[in-house]
Amino acid sequence: MGSNENAKQNAPLRSLAPGERFCGWYLLKQAQNAATGGGKPYLNFRLTDNSGELPGKFWDYAGPIGAGDAGQAVWASGRVESYQNAVQLSLDDLRLADGQDDVDLRRIIPAAPYDAGQMLAYVERTLQGLADADYRAVCLALLERHRDAFALLPGAKGMHHAFLHGLLMHTANMMRQADFLSKLYADVIDRSLLLAGTFLHDIGKLAEYSTTALGLVSDYSREGMLLGHIFLGTEEVGEAARELGIPEEKRLLLQHLLASHHGRVEFGAIVLPKCAEAELLAGIDMVDSRMEIYRETYADTPTGQFSRQKVYGLNNQAVYRPETDPSQAGGTGEQS
Amino acid sequence: MGSNENAKQNAPLRSLAPGERFCGWYLLKQAQNAATGGGKPYLNFRLTDNSGELPGKFWDYAGPIGAGDAGQAVWASGRVESYQNAVQLSLDDLRLADGQDDVDLRRIIPAAPYDAGQMLAYVERTLQGLADADYRAVCLALLERHRDAFALLPGAKGMHHAFLHGLLMHTANMMRQADFLSKLYADVIDRSLLLAGTFLHDIGKLAEYSTTALGLVSDYSREGMLLGHIFLGTEEVGEAARELGIPEEKRLLLQHLLASHHGRVEFGAIVLPKCAEAELLAGIDMVDSRMEIYRETYADTPTGQFSRQKVYGLNNQAVYRPETDPSQAGGTGEQS
Amino acid sequence: MGSNENAKQNAPLRSLAPGERFCGWYLLKQAQNAATGGGKPYLNFRLTDNSGELPGKFWDYAGPIGAGDAGQAVWASGRVESYQNAVQLSLDDLRLADGQDDVDLRRIIPAAPYDAGQMLAYVERTLQGLADADYRAVCLALLERHRDAFALLPGAKGMHHAFLHGLLMHTANMMRQADFLSKLYADVIDRSLLLAGTFLHDIGKLAEYSTTALGLVSDYSREGMLLGHIFLGTEEVGEAARELGIPEEKRLLLQHLLASHHGRVEFGAIVLPKCAEAELLAGIDMVDSRMEIYRETYADTPTGQFSRQKVYGLNNQAVYRPETDPSQAGGTGEQS
Amino acid sequence: MGSNENAKQNAPLRSLAPGERFCGWYLLKQAQNAATGGGKPYLNFRLTDNSGELPGKFWDYAGPIGAGDAGQAVWASGRVESYQNAVQLSLDDLRLADGQDDVDLRRIIPAAPYDAGQMLAYVERTLQGLADADYRAVCLALLERHRDAFALLPGAKGMHHAFLHGLLMHTANMMRQADFLSKLYADVIDRSLLLAGTFLHDIGKLAEYSTTALGLVSDYSREGMLLGHIFLGTEEVGEAARELGIPEEKRLLLQHLLASHHGRVEFGAIVLPKCAEAELLAGIDMVDSRMEIYRETYADTPTGQFSRQKVYGLNNQAVYRPETDPSQAGGTGEQS
Amino acid sequence: MGSNENAKQNAPLRSLAPGERFCGWYLLKQAQNAATGGGKPYLNFRLTDNSGELPGKFWDYAGPIGAGDAGQAVWASGRVESYQNAVQLSLDDLRLADGQDDVDLRRIIPAAPYDAGQMLAYVERTLQGLADADYRAVCLALLERHRDAFALLPGAKGMHHAFLHGLLMHTANMMRQADFLSKLYADVIDRSLLLAGTFLHDIGKLAEYSTTALGLVSDYSREGMLLGHIFLGTEEVGEAARELGIPEEKRLLLQHLLASHHGRVEFGAIVLPKCAEAELLAGIDMVDSRMEIYRETYADTPTGQFSRQKVYGLNNQAVYRPETDPSQAGGTGEQS
Amino acid sequence: MGSNENAKQNAPLRSLAPGERFCGWYLLKQAQNAATGGGKPYLNFRLTDNSGELPGKFWDYAGPIGAGDAGQAVWASGRVESYQNAVQLSLDDLRLADGQDDVDLRRIIPAAPYDAGQMLAYVERTLQGLADADYRAVCLALLERHRDAFALLPGAKGMHHAFLHGLLMHTANMMRQADFLSKLYADVIDRSLLLAGTFLHDIGKLAEYSTTALGLVSDYSREGMLLGHIFLGTEEVGEAARELGIPEEKRLLLQHLLASHHGRVEFGAIVLPKCAEAELLAGIDMVDSRMEIYRETYADTPTGQFSRQKVYGLNNQAVYRPETDPSQAGGTGEQS
Repeated sequence: MGSNENAKQNAPLRSLAPGERFCGWYLLKQAQNAATGGGKPYLNFRLTDNSGELPGKFWDYAGPIGAGDAGQAVWASGRVESYQNAVQLSLDDLRLADGQDDVDLRRIIPAAPYDAGQMLAYVERTLQGLADADYRAVCLALLERHRDAFALLPGAKGMHHAFLHGLLMHTANMMRQADFLSKLYADVIDRSLLLAGTFLHDIGKLAEYSTTALGLVSDYSREGMLLGHIFLGTEEVGEAARELGIPEEKRLLLQHLLASHHGRVEFGAIVLPKCAEAELLAGIDMVDSRMEIYRETYADTPTGQFSRQKVYGLNNQAVYRPETDPSQAGGTGEQS
Repeated sequence: MGSNENAKQNAPLRSLAPGERFCGWYLLKQAQNAATGGGKPYLNFRLTDNSGELPGKFWDYAGPIGAGDAGQAVWASGRVESYQNAVQLSLDDLRLADGQDDVDLRRIIPAAPYDAGQMLAYVERTLQGLADADYRAVCLALLERHRDAFALLPGAKGMHHAFLHGLLMHTANMMRQADFLSKLYADVIDRSLLLAGTFLHDIGKLAEYSTTALGLVSDYSREGMLLGHIFLGTEEVGEAARELGIPEEKRLLLQHLLASHHGRVEFGAIVLPKCAEAELLAGIDMVDSRMEIYRETYADTPTGQFSRQKVYGLNNQAVYRPETDPSQAGGTGEQS
Repeated sequence: MGSNENAKQNAPLRSLAPGERFCGWYLLKQAQNAATGGGKPYLNFRLTDNSGELPGKFWDYAGPIGAGDAGQAVWASGRVESYQNAVQLSLDDLRLADGQDDVDLRRIIPAAPYDAGQMLAYVERTLQGLADADYRAVCLALLERHRDAFALLPGAKGMHHAFLHGLLMHTANMMRQADFLSKLYADVIDRSLLLAGTFLHDIGKLAEYSTTALGLVSDYSREGMLLGHIFLGTEEVGEAARELGIPEEKRLLLQHLLASHHGRVEFGAIVLPKCAEAELLAGIDMVDSRMEIYRETYADTPTGQFSRQKVYGLNNQAVYRPETDPSQAGGTGEQS
Repeated sequence: MGSNENAKQNAPLRSLAPGERFCGWYLLKQAQNAATGGGKPYLNFRLTDNSGELPGKFWDYAGPIGAGDAGQAVWASGRVESYQNAVQLSLDDLRLADGQDDVDLRRIIPAAPYDAGQMLAYVERTLQGLADADYRAVCLALLERHRDAFALLPGAKGMHHAFLHGLLMHTANMMRQADFLSKLYADVIDRSLLLAGTFLHDIGKLAEYSTTALGLVSDYSREGMLLGHIFLGTEEVGEAARELGIPEEKRLLLQHLLASHHGRVEFGAIVLPKCAEAELLAGIDMVDSRMEIYRETYADTPTGQFSRQKVYGLNNQAVYRPETDPSQAGGTGEQS
Repeated sequence: MGSNENAKQNAPLRSLAPGERFCGWYLLKQAQNAATGGGKPYLNFRLTDNSGELPGKFWDYAGPIGAGDAGQAVWASGRVESYQNAVQLSLDDLRLADGQDDVDLRRIIPAAPYDAGQMLAYVERTLQGLADADYRAVCLALLERHRDAFALLPGAKGMHHAFLHGLLMHTANMMRQADFLSKLYADVIDRSLLLAGTFLHDIGKLAEYSTTALGLVSDYSREGMLLGHIFLGTEEVGEAARELGIPEEKRLLLQHLLASHHGRVEFGAIVLPKCAEAELLAGIDMVDSRMEIYRETYADTPTGQFSRQKVYGLNNQAVYRPETDPSQAGGTGEQS
Repeated sequence: MGSNENAKQNAPLRSLAPGERFCGWYLLKQAQNAATGGGKPYLNFRLTDNSGELPGKFWDYAGPIGAGDAGQAVWASGRVESYQNAVQLSLDDLRLADGQDDVDLRRIIPAAPYDAGQMLAYVERTLQGLADADYRAVCLALLERHRDAFALLPGAKGMHHAFLHGLLMHTANMMRQADFLSKLYADVIDRSLLLAGTFLHDIGKLAEYSTTALGLVSDYSREGMLLGHIFLGTEEVGEAARELGIPEEKRLLLQHLLASHHGRVEFGAIVLPKCAEAELLAGIDMVDSRMEIYRETYADTPTGQFSRQKVYGLNNQAVYRPETDPSQAGGTGEQS
């Protein structure tokens, strides 16, 4: 792993200064194999961790790592240099993490701002408590099958919840909402169906993305591109329900909730919602996605100002962060 | 009021049989002045109450009641007859109710399936408890100004909540949701702003509709047609906020929530939602409207079947009522 | 079966004249249970066969046949009467056909204008000749599973090919086109994949419709309403491919062809076509559907004139039938 | 023409190495007149041929060639140099080709992958064989009028068939399809009308583009911008039909096929298709355009992968090239 | 012409009373051949004139007049009867008007509310005064060719200006606007081009409609259906310009103005406006059409009220007629 | 203000040559605070005036001026330098203009090509002459309130009339059109209402933009972003009308004209036009905006050519400037 004496290990990228030596686990954001005018191979790359991002070069490097490895966690060691007033890295070692390595992903990749273990426990506890044994069985079977990937996966590629445990956080939040609303609209909503559909709604994303050895999303998978997560989830839930022998109507309703949960065909829904639980699930998904985009946008927007950029997921508009910051206000004490 | 001896008084229309005499308060659903071949004037009409609807004629009647009085409550007395195997009414007296009459509207017009007094008390108590004194002041001032009409008005013309106290029921339900969601998304949502906007969001409907002496909606008003309830509410809230001297940013935010609460310009929004509370309000409004349309549609649909008609407010589709009726199930006991 | 002496049996409806007695198998197009002013039950109905349609009444009939039996084949006997210058039927017997009855459906229901046996033989022979053993296996397995229903089902509900064997005719015609085009575009089209996708493209319609005892379509099925034929077909093909153990990429491609074959999401496609065979299948489906609508429309339009009605499936326009009728012209002899 | 001793003549651009001299005919892709800091004029340019593209400079060059000549074939001679690790050209001579020059366009501009002479012969033979003498006369008259330009022109500007003989290849392929489909749908399709419309459908492109001395497309023409090729073709066909005195209905049908061949007004159709031949022509045009875009896209996409770019003409998506390459498979032997 | 002694001749339909005899010229609005129960033929019809509309029957009439003659002027004579409290006509003679008859169309068909002769004189005088001799020549040539039909034709089928001289009134009003605006925007607008385009913009309607012997519009013509008035006008103007040898750019501009005058492709424009005069012409056409629809709608709407119907050509809305009637106000005296 | 001896004062930027000293008032188009590699602060900026635009640096400058001051007028002095063959400025002094400074804005910012004083006088005189005293009163009150800002403000941010006095020019031109059209359509148009609505239609822009000390637009204001100029104007006009006590119907009509003046909800209209004056105002606004965009586009387009760029406000197309330039032609002499 190169000469690492005196090297700072796993130091935040932002803390590195020209002249220092370093080594540690980082995320390889980009990589391009290139050659000098004289024909010598080298690697152009960018590393990131939660503190920032730095460019660099690995001279006389001819592979095996290249463009196809973007999105992987890597072990990198080398020296920090200065070039045209900017900091860049010069490597003497680089290799991909594999399943053996003990990499602390939370140091190099953004993660959900809540405790993943507690969120997972809440989800499981809620599913175990579903009144309807059929819906409960399907949910627990699929949780069992996918537990680790489900707990780790980001919620979306780019749009919202694009961080570790994002899918779990999105799902858990939606289940809390579904729980509340199933009571508010108890005369039309079957709580077991709604909660089961909410838990399962994005299960197809596990197949829609390609993931690296460490479980990071690197791209859409072939089946994700050709069939889409809505189809993939609806198909898998149908198959699981058939295996468990649950009644046909319940299987169809559960599949219908997944198939329609984007609410409009131009957003990818296979069919439009045709029962109250399907309609409500589509509404909950919309609300939770939008609130998360606001949370992420506000994090980069000073109070009393508009976001610097138009936000694609918010109707492509600049949005306003009010002067009063509710997360500071604390004034949510009184309620009826 | 005609000879009412032996007449059944305020009897449900469905209970009337040929040969009986009747008198009482009913809703005049339609009325048309006509003339016989021999040139004698008479009135064609339909009466309704919560039990049903009957056609009838008032022979030798030349007014003053006519087509323009549809939607009014009337005192009617006469005889029940049979014509071509169908029941119809023949009147000897007819007059409009005025403010003096002690008419029990709930007998002749559908009303919200909840106790209006309790809903109003919940709304008022919640507003009094708002942490932010400015938003609280605007809400209480407008509640004070419009209390009676606000409590009585239907929620919409035809689409959903089209019954007495409908606006109140819609508003109260949405406030319960807003209350819950302001906690779930506490880091981006100012609870006071969201609840104030929720309470006020349809306040412009008070001006959008023409109402009869008894407070029933008969049609859109001129200002409702020319400016629309979204504009009218946004304007009134701005005016009230200015009178109370609340800070400019809070006034703008409140007006923004009203102006954007239909979410999309093709649904009538003046601007698109540009802050988290506005986005959430639009979502809550959509969810509550849709759930109410499901409630009303399911009431006419047997379990395990599709609705007989396509439902305009549900993407113009036939919708499915599952075999399990949640209002009978009771099985919502266990929760995490 | 009533007194059928001297009754015309299985006579075309158009040939019946007032005063005659009749009996035979017909299609029950509409039925409504009603009661006379005096409270006596009777049935209002309409019968059709390939010659026309007649209304009628079955006096003193209280069931079991009613509105829910529309679309069924029935045995009817009675007398032909005249009422207000129009012919109507008066029954003394009526019962549903069941699987036992030897009903000649082609006499009472329109059928495809080609020989169903030959079309089915062409389809099977073509599938047996597919070069790719995997695609061939899936097709033959599903043909085996659904042979009878596939050969009998109409192609669509109302829009086009809405007659017996319609799905078979539509599929066979499309396969002929696919065969030709796979040669014309041989450098981008895998003939086996295209022909397999073409054969299977509407296989989900077998589950989308409810059928009567005789195999007639009466309505959309529950799963047809909740998931749609595109999903149902894509799911079934995936399941069959998995059972047969064909390679994953081929399964995905076949599912992709089904999932995208409506070409645009506003026409129901789950995903847009993403390979050449999927694009071509969508084009072939569009062409064959439109040509069939023209064939059916021209049948009711004199040459040199516009169709009397706007045609929904042809962009909701009146279309023109040229003066020269190609089916008479015969002049297609010379070709390069 | 400069000192060309020892110069490589008409060498593929990709084969040129720093230090060599070269001369020959190339395509001038871009040109910009510029000046050095010291005020001396020079030309910045890029040359292309079928092997690749190279940048270069012509020092001390003040014209007459400039930006307006992009798209022209030029004679260039000079030296190959190296600048910042990249090859660039330094010229000592440059002039436009004119009609006199014997330039082999196929060396410097991409051409259709089929033999143009054979395609043209097929088109002409097919038109001569049309059963209907009127449609035949119009086609042959316009083929006579435009033979050379028709055979040389690209099929579209950028989207598909954007190479020499592209229009001819597109038209010939479509005619093969039209021929087949006129038999498959012989009861609604007049083969002569369909084939005539197919031959003529893009004839307006001859006027829509501006061409250089050698027949290359350089831009849209003024009439192309102001009226569009659909109008221009429909107008010219109408005029030719009138001159030849063909019956009015046939003239109108032929004009209608051209006016509607883009199928939807948002794609430029003047009217929507209103007869079977018009509908079919629009379908054939769509299919052939899309298949050609796939052919061109697959050429840059490895098997088993998605295209690197989203493809504008394929619904702006990345498309998938299956693992099995049909052009290698050869397995199209067996057919029914 | 039947026994017309004592018959009222050419009396307004509204003035006819049961028992009277009548004869005269009227418009045949509808006609249907029918037969009595006993098999005797008769004609069901409706006549209109500017005073109103009446139904009637011609007993024992077997033709030749039938449904295809709706829209024709007819000579009718017979007796006025009373049936079920309503007036209806019973004929003893009926024949179509031909070119010989001296029918006063203005008595039986609504006409423009202005003097047609003066409007035509204004149009011609304005065209003769165009500064540009080329545009002037085209306009005068086409005016000469179509003078009578141009002066008589309605402006549209149903939407607006649907009365005699409607096209002339629409064109003349637009020319007045064009004249004013060409001065207001004199730095971008060529007055001659704009006025020529305005005069010619709907010239294609002369071919788009089928007309009766008296010049009344009965339906769309075949070429109107297959090519549309925008194409037909653009083609004819191009042909006229070529015959007159006007410069190519001017011909193209004039054709462009016609081809783009509906402003948006979804409204039928062949191309979008691409020069200032084309844009302005589209604006003027929109304004004049809408103002005329308002004029016609207000005629049926009391002041201070909304129109009883939604108006298709005004965005399908009910529109408001203000309390102040400008046609009575007279208060337009003062201006700057 | 730095050493300004021998400095050119207020010289056009285009006239400055390397080596010269300069000082004067310019517009600060962009500004960014930056730091050298060695950590020294400096300012990157661009200045503009009506002659052009130049980049520059102010070394060792640490504020207070920065990115937030873009759009302000500044006093700048320094030296003209040459860097990489391009001219750039090096400053020794920079400060913002304030209300005290006597800055000739017309030298540094584009202004309307007409005399602002005369335009304002025309507007005021026309309003004073309105026949209806109520509409007159509202207009004059709002003119009084906003006279200076109304006369100075640009007409739009970027799209059209984006120069000093642009709003005034746009409004005055539209009033001339409104005046003419109110006479042409005198039977449906109330001239006073139309002219009042025209004058007031964009009054909300005064609140929609943030302006600098000198009245220049720098950005959208917070209320402009949250409510939009259409709402803001409609609200203010309603408030003014209420204060003046004008009749309710007139207030509603005036508000309706403002609320609907963008004509379509996708263009921002709060409601669609529902009376003739509202429809006409929307038409006039569209025409004047488009004609101005043509004027500005033609200024950069040679005659006989298409604009170099697609123009966003003209349906995103390249537009054609005819060979004949009407502003040179002068030939608008003759008219009927």
